[in-house]
Amino acid sequence: MGWTSEDFFTDSPVSSSSVHERVDQFIAANRGTGGQLRRPIVCVTSGGTCVPLERRCVRFIDNFSGGTRGALSTEHFLQAGYAVIFLNRKHSIQPFTKGLPSGQILDCLTQVLEPSAAGNGAPEGSEQADRLVRACVATAHEVAARGVLLRVAFETLFEYLAYLRAIAEALRPCGQGAAFYLAAAVSDFFIPWQEMAEHKIQSAGVGDQLHLTLQKTPKMLGDLRRLWAPEAFVISFKLETDENVLAKKAAGAIERYGVHAVVANILETRKDVVTLLAPAAAGASAAPAKSLIRRPADGQVIEAPLVAELARRHAVYWGSTGT
Amino acid sequence: MGWTSEDFFTDSPVSSSSVHERVDQFIAANRGTGGQLRRPIVCVTSGGTCVPLERRCVRFIDNFSGGTRGALSTEHFLQAGYAVIFLNRKHSIQPFTKGLPSGQILDCLTQVLEPSAAGNGAPEGSEQADRLVRACVATAHEVAARGVLLRVAFETLFEYLAYLRAIAEALRPCGQGAAFYLAAAVSDFFIPWQEMAEHKIQSAGVGDQLHLTLQKTPKMLGDLRRLWAPEAFVISFKLETDENVLAKKAAGAIERYGVHAVVANILETRKDVVTLLAPAAAGASAAPAKSLIRRPADGQVIEAPLVAELARRHAVYWGSTGT
Repeated sequence: MGWTSEDFFTDSPVSSSSVHERVDQFIAANRGTGGQLRRPIVCVTSGGTCVPLERRCVRFIDNFSGGTRGALSTEHFLQAGYAVIFLNRKHSIQPFTKGLPSGQILDCLTQVLEPSAAGNGAPEGSEQADRLVRACVATAHEVAARGVLLRVAFETLFEYLAYLRAIAEALRPCGQGAAFYLAAAVSDFFIPWQEMAEHKIQSAGVGDQLHLTLQKTPKMLGDLRRLWAPEAFVISFKLETDENVLAKKAAGAIERYGVHAVVANILETRKDVVTLLAPAAAGASAAPAKSLIRRPADGQVIEAPLVAELARRHAVYWGSTGT
Repeated sequence: MGWTSEDFFTDSPVSSSSVHERVDQFIAANRGTGGQLRRPIVCVTSGGTCVPLERRCVRFIDNFSGGTRGALSTEHFLQAGYAVIFLNRKHSIQPFTKGLPSGQILDCLTQVLEPSAAGNGAPEGSEQADRLVRACVATAHEVAARGVLLRVAFETLFEYLAYLRAIAEALRPCGQGAAFYLAAAVSDFFIPWQEMAEHKIQSAGVGDQLHLTLQKTPKMLGDLRRLWAPEAFVISFKLETDENVLAKKAAGAIERYGVHAVVANILETRKDVVTLLAPAAAGASAAPAKSLIRRPADGQVIEAPLVAELARRHAVYWGSTGT
């Protein structure tokens, strides 16, 4: 028998009460005087979770994900009028940093402080870069001042799932006005805290090979849909390297967990095209409806049409019951 | 039988010829017209290596290490008159960034561009921060302009070991004027490339548990000492969470691999105190000589006295033969 969600949370060492409080305050700030939501609220998850191999964590299994999709999508949800809870891996890419000089922080500061030293070619180029940097900083500030962006950082799978549950439970009273955009790369396997070594695993003690046994991470999508926030609009993600595997798994998420949309990605092409799947009008047992979303030709990122389409569908869903 | 270094490099998919060329050029730039070294050269390794679990890398096992020790030590080696090859994990901490505002790049830029908006309290505080930032940027530039710092970035264990070998072979002609300061956190176990799955491991196909078998990483310290750069001064590091394990392993590195010094660290206290071990005057079979290095009371980091002491020992070693 595999691990259930209940087993997982009983075993987990993470407390999420402070996250619950912060989300409560954030929701309150986004309600009108009559108590109704002034705007829809989406929880965007971003970056990869890691799984410690030792309690005093020296080694861990990590999932590759810079967090670009989550960061860009957050910008577009804000533009679409949402308040966003950005549940992100610590040090992953943040919203409003795309215009910033890439790479090391020193190179970035150099470009701002001494554009000529940064070797950026023509002075017009530096001026343009400088304008872009100032615009990013200004936008980030404006968003912070309006109180429509709440950042919650995680590192381990234990933190991610505990915080996601806390956010979902806090959002439950928002009904269909709440959405989840689950772009984080979540570890499929983990080592339970109670089975984990206290100290660093010693190479001397284990012979020439190290055998690790990991448990399958319990699927929390079902809990999110049925228990934590049953009315919220849920968008899940599948990232694979193999097209055949991807199609099957994306359809499975709709059938099995009843999510409202699945964004299906192939690792290599995910910035150019994604497939959006939704339950068929005929019901969850029929083949899901599919539409392709492509990166626009005008230089915009693919997150622009993707988020626009999802916001449209969420508005229909919310409006249909008039919560 | 475990994997040998030869097995490892035969299996590894990484080519290091471009690193070898860059190091050759760097060494040439640090030689006088007569061909003698104008200054000692140290290769500082920094940050953790990761071990992919799949060829198209989505998941990997990572070693926790921000790279603070390597970055700060690089600054102090430069101050001590060394040319430094900084072999660092991509996105790990870089030299001359300690004075910079910590945290996200946007917060950092905000502090520089709009110190009042950053909520830093008194204007004197912001002015001081601004001065510090400008000093960091200026120092980094001065070092870059002098050509005494070469940065080589790695991510995987395969890259780290291939680049380390290339650097060592390029440094071999520098004889005792070269040193290695091996502060990187290197994975003890890995999955050979040839045994690695092409695609993402599927949770559906493996039942409720995932069993991973990792091979012990061949010890390359012996190859570095005996084959790659036999005359270079080699400083290795041990990081443990358990004092008893640490003492034994540090002494073993001297006895087994003939390194010239070992810096022994406990995870929790490594910024306050380290133990420096060296071969006993009586020979490698006697108990090693130990000295404690502590963080100075004047606010300097522990890397200041640590690097000063090692540079002193390296100078004695180099001077003793007059290479």
